[in-house]
Amino acid sequence: MKSSFGQSVNISITGESHGAGLVAVLSGLTPGIKIDEEYIRRCLSQRAPMGKISTPRQEADEFEILSGVFEGFTTGTPITILIRNTNTKSKDYSEMASTARPGHADFTADVKYHGFQDYRGGGHFSGRITAVLVAAGAIARLALKNKGIEIGTHIAKCGTVSDRAFENAVDDIRTLNEKYFAVLSDESAEAMQAEILNAADEGDSIGGVLETAVLGLPAGLGEPWFDSMESVLAHFLFSIPGIKGVEFGGGFAVARMKGSQVNGSLRIEDGKITPVNDLSGGVNGGITNGDILKFRCAVRPTPTIFKEQNTVDMKNLADKTLSAKGRHDPAIVHRVRAVVDSATAITLCDMLAQRYGTDWAKEEF
Amino acid sequence: MKSSFGQSVNISITGESHGAGLVAVLSGLTPGIKIDEEYIRRCLSQRAPMGKISTPRQEADEFEILSGVFEGFTTGTPITILIRNTNTKSKDYSEMASTARPGHADFTADVKYHGFQDYRGGGHFSGRITAVLVAAGAIARLALKNKGIEIGTHIAKCGTVSDRAFENAVDDIRTLNEKYFAVLSDESAEAMQAEILNAADEGDSIGGVLETAVLGLPAGLGEPWFDSMESVLAHFLFSIPGIKGVEFGGGFAVARMKGSQVNGSLRIEDGKITPVNDLSGGVNGGITNGDILKFRCAVRPTPTIFKEQNTVDMKNLADKTLSAKGRHDPAIVHRVRAVVDSATAITLCDMLAQRYGTDWAKEEF
Amino acid sequence: MKSSFGQSVNISITGESHGAGLVAVLSGLTPGIKIDEEYIRRCLSQRAPMGKISTPRQEADEFEILSGVFEGFTTGTPITILIRNTNTKSKDYSEMASTARPGHADFTADVKYHGFQDYRGGGHFSGRITAVLVAAGAIARLALKNKGIEIGTHIAKCGTVSDRAFENAVDDIRTLNEKYFAVLSDESAEAMQAEILNAADEGDSIGGVLETAVLGLPAGLGEPWFDSMESVLAHFLFSIPGIKGVEFGGGFAVARMKGSQVNGSLRIEDGKITPVNDLSGGVNGGITNGDILKFRCAVRPTPTIFKEQNTVDMKNLADKTLSAKGRHDPAIVHRVRAVVDSATAITLCDMLAQRYGTDWAKEEF
Amino acid sequence: MKSSFGQSVNISITGESHGAGLVAVLSGLTPGIKIDEEYIRRCLSQRAPMGKISTPRQEADEFEILSGVFEGFTTGTPITILIRNTNTKSKDYSEMASTARPGHADFTADVKYHGFQDYRGGGHFSGRITAVLVAAGAIARLALKNKGIEIGTHIAKCGTVSDRAFENAVDDIRTLNEKYFAVLSDESAEAMQAEILNAADEGDSIGGVLETAVLGLPAGLGEPWFDSMESVLAHFLFSIPGIKGVEFGGGFAVARMKGSQVNGSLRIEDGKITPVNDLSGGVNGGITNGDILKFRCAVRPTPTIFKEQNTVDMKNLADKTLSAKGRHDPAIVHRVRAVVDSATAITLCDMLAQRYGTDWAKEEF
Repeated sequence: MKSSFGQSVNISITGESHGAGLVAVLSGLTPGIKIDEEYIRRCLSQRAPMGKISTPRQEADEFEILSGVFEGFTTGTPITILIRNTNTKSKDYSEMASTARPGHADFTADVKYHGFQDYRGGGHFSGRITAVLVAAGAIARLALKNKGIEIGTHIAKCGTVSDRAFENAVDDIRTLNEKYFAVLSDESAEAMQAEILNAADEGDSIGGVLETAVLGLPAGLGEPWFDSMESVLAHFLFSIPGIKGVEFGGGFAVARMKGSQVNGSLRIEDGKITPVNDLSGGVNGGITNGDILKFRCAVRPTPTIFKEQNTVDMKNLADKTLSAKGRHDPAIVHRVRAVVDSATAITLCDMLAQRYGTDWAKEEF
Repeated sequence: MKSSFGQSVNISITGESHGAGLVAVLSGLTPGIKIDEEYIRRCLSQRAPMGKISTPRQEADEFEILSGVFEGFTTGTPITILIRNTNTKSKDYSEMASTARPGHADFTADVKYHGFQDYRGGGHFSGRITAVLVAAGAIARLALKNKGIEIGTHIAKCGTVSDRAFENAVDDIRTLNEKYFAVLSDESAEAMQAEILNAADEGDSIGGVLETAVLGLPAGLGEPWFDSMESVLAHFLFSIPGIKGVEFGGGFAVARMKGSQVNGSLRIEDGKITPVNDLSGGVNGGITNGDILKFRCAVRPTPTIFKEQNTVDMKNLADKTLSAKGRHDPAIVHRVRAVVDSATAITLCDMLAQRYGTDWAKEEF
Repeated sequence: MKSSFGQSVNISITGESHGAGLVAVLSGLTPGIKIDEEYIRRCLSQRAPMGKISTPRQEADEFEILSGVFEGFTTGTPITILIRNTNTKSKDYSEMASTARPGHADFTADVKYHGFQDYRGGGHFSGRITAVLVAAGAIARLALKNKGIEIGTHIAKCGTVSDRAFENAVDDIRTLNEKYFAVLSDESAEAMQAEILNAADEGDSIGGVLETAVLGLPAGLGEPWFDSMESVLAHFLFSIPGIKGVEFGGGFAVARMKGSQVNGSLRIEDGKITPVNDLSGGVNGGITNGDILKFRCAVRPTPTIFKEQNTVDMKNLADKTLSAKGRHDPAIVHRVRAVVDSATAITLCDMLAQRYGTDWAKEEF
Repeated sequence: MKSSFGQSVNISITGESHGAGLVAVLSGLTPGIKIDEEYIRRCLSQRAPMGKISTPRQEADEFEILSGVFEGFTTGTPITILIRNTNTKSKDYSEMASTARPGHADFTADVKYHGFQDYRGGGHFSGRITAVLVAAGAIARLALKNKGIEIGTHIAKCGTVSDRAFENAVDDIRTLNEKYFAVLSDESAEAMQAEILNAADEGDSIGGVLETAVLGLPAGLGEPWFDSMESVLAHFLFSIPGIKGVEFGGGFAVARMKGSQVNGSLRIEDGKITPVNDLSGGVNGGITNGDILKFRCAVRPTPTIFKEQNTVDMKNLADKTLSAKGRHDPAIVHRVRAVVDSATAITLCDMLAQRYGTDWAKEEF
């Protein structure tokens, strides 16, 4: 089936964990966006594994822009980005060809592709593929910056530790975008990392919750049916490996509240209609209201763990046990953060292009 | 922009709360599905307001199938369903033409459509539109039943009251589908309704959480990128008015758990690979694993309340207060249930048609 | 499968020749377009049968706009148009339930829909369905008129008779749009109608070629791959019943010419780059060049004829002969003209909305 | 805007004539299709320039499959193909940066992309991009072969010379697919090549007409609205550089004929309903009838010619003349043939996957 996303701005990503490389095709972006390769590298580094809280697999993530950029600017025609895999140790996986790792797509992929899928390291299902998505997302973020739109995500929760809430979103987002481990409170950051290392010591893994804020979005983006802002964002977010829940504004918490608490209000501020509502998430009736867009994603603990698990040999249809070998992350929530930023950026570019046309990133609206 | 959803099976819904009527176009359904009008009526009645827990606005919801059904069976060409609005009291809204109701889309619609939208009762944003969606969804459910696929949704939470969890899903789903107020525990149902009536007495409203289970889905539905089962379902679900969060399986709870707790296991049962995992929600890597599909939707409290709220006059750009008049629901969670069932059914038909082709509902797979 | 067309502006049409009625859903149109019902009626009358050159089946084609128009203007939300069938004589078709009419879709529909299709009068395949498309197209044309874009189609050939070529396109288009039988030369018009009547007398039918010109399109519409202006227009045009060929500019004739004859030239006119090329059809590299857009459609002779034809009984798998009964057109080319105008209008609205955003019809570009 | 094509099977192609390279992403193909690299190379060689009738620019067209193929078979996940450009002489184009070549997209691209497009050799508009499309199309053809579906295209006309018509389609297609210059009559082939060389001598170019036949397609593919078989094929075909007309079956010729001549008939043959109609092109009502699918494409003469032409300097808004330098084809019709075959193959895979589901190429239908 179709393996791309977006109407006016469209993204496609291909590749496998242990294949030749990864490719992203990003089409429909406004011509004339200045490409900042240093910025793309920084976004990639925020997804890369680092320190003991991540897998020891190190990939250079050197990207090559094969098309769509000419003399330093986007051309308006499709942008192609290639990242070659270099540090693949496929022999780590060879004995697992027919072992379905619990929590992974090994079994479901086997059913869907009748055993023809590239099973090495999860193949096309691997989080590895997100590298090239982050590179494409970085370019989308450059387009958004042209219009003063900034995205920031923090690890609101990691295991049992919580970060402080967003306060001054402008400052908080600036701070986050310079950090590798995107937590607002330094104390929380330390406690979270300790918890990740603890899980690693146990051969286990932990998850977390990412909270994203977007500044500078105009009101009026999204459709009543079926392409609400929540719908389109959630569509992309739920395809990121490991995300099991998405909520906007107050999310699941509003289900327990009264209408009078949730509604917020509107008022005239500087002659402009201004929604006053921390729980709407910046969206009413599926359409942005001009306030900060806010949502949270639940990230499950990494499925690959060193603890022994019960599973099956898919070829011989026999029960067996499995203790993961190879190189794995005791947590991915801090790395998924860059992926969420990228998915958000690409989705917003699409919504803006649908609303304002191809040249949205260069024109006034 | 495009106002339809689905690749192989596609739905479009149109109409306004106080307009002439509502239309659904459902295309791509397998030819030869027997239409059971009584069943469609029953699904519609589960969405209709009833008793004191709902708005007093009564609509006959008499539907006319204008096309796509011939001699009692689907033809394979687009099905058109018309439900006329009969009980519209537009004068209730006339004085509110320029008043933005907090929590509603009045302001965002005004920005998006420059004041040309039909403001009466929320126009195209109204929950009223979901009537025709439920009728279309009922037909989709008839197609699914042909293959033994059954959908059931209960009110897992309403205000502060919880229902018991799913136990025997086959029985629970059968029970739920015969109830108007879809709660498994009779005790919880009473407590929930009491809480709704309390909110109504206060001129306020409450929300809830809907939990859906789907039985009989084959493994192998969904894509790694971007059309994961979670993505496509969430896309549709988030466009239903009032839904602010969607989670699959363990959802946000798994973010606090360890990998070893979340992964579950696989085993051979009756010679078949069987996932054993209550927290996956029936999906691994975006693809169904053959287990029960499970997800939850957070439904916000109805935004229209009789309590006084601060808002603005959009025409005169002035602050004002508002106490709702007209007929409104102190809770919608029990009515949204039928909408979630319908959205789920249509989405699954599409995923099945993409996987197995046009004739999926009549053929073996 | 999906039964709609268009990315930003989208059209869906439903109904059957002898069903309850026809519905069009047109979504994505700019809010605030003034609806001129008289204009819609005029467009419908240009598709309606008239005189002896058409079928005697008379349909009032009274349309009801069910949604998307409020107080005389488009709201920006989906527009729904209903035209009920009134003059259906289904008994004319009953004996033909299992007879495949040569040149029709009876056999292919039977294969595709396994016999569940509405066979009466061609069901969903009937040219009757185009009535509601013309109504939707009329609204699209009103949006285009807001930007000074005008569409005109003449019958360039009918049977063996040719019309004169376009000369002054502005005047010619104005003239054509006031005519029922859209021919520029009155002499040709008479000869064409004589040829149609001759064919009718023989129990036979004839075809023709429609040539369309569009004035006022900006340069820059269309994509290099895959949504060239030619691609998107041809997609829609080829789904109109009876169209078997589409060519742009010089079309098939340029295949016989030299590059130096076909290329034309460019020059500076009033300080603006101006293509000088009668053979490009207003498109270079898939993108409009600002010149008049020109294309031609081959319309086959009506397949239903009174002459005896060899065919089969699909139920009994037996050869048989058939002489059509019922009411039929000896030519449809003059009626298809309004359909081509409508298809063109809707396609262009979509291309404009993709390029300039939702509000294209109200803003400067 | 979106730069991909297809619903269930989807193609995206990127790159520029003088950029780093070309990439195709082909997604949705059935897993388990055996990849025959030799066959892909043969298809590429049929598009490559050869002899004096083509440009002297020689490209190795060495392709690398970056993803989607594992151990020699398609995996079912997206296939990525990379062809690097090696023989680029960009200095040939540097002085033409602001010169709009007549008949090319230079002017329209400049308007659309505001001067940011890669102007070298036509950039993304260049026929060079079709190399990677042919590689992807070759894989699609391998999938079709699994089901006995074969595509063949001949040069029906080149300049003023005609080839003989298809006779025994099975043999003719086999013959054509082994030829570089795809003409059925050897005599015609010689005359055509002589005409191309004549044009080259004059510094001019010629065009032609390609005729394609597809064997082995099942009846029942295509939709009444809007995705008729003709619509979907024409969509793709019209985005191939240089194609200005597409006709199915009798095409424009049927416009001059009588219904009784065009309709053909149906008969029972070997107990099966069989359409007998050379003019339908294998499609009735937009749906394949099981007969040979036949269509023709008009290919314009190459726009780049050595003769002096009038044009403009786009930067200085001044008239100027232009005589092409660089390396160019006096005709492209013989090279476009491989592109038409590929476009057809990809489109048919999509139509089959929509009808029969993901596994269509491995299952019985």
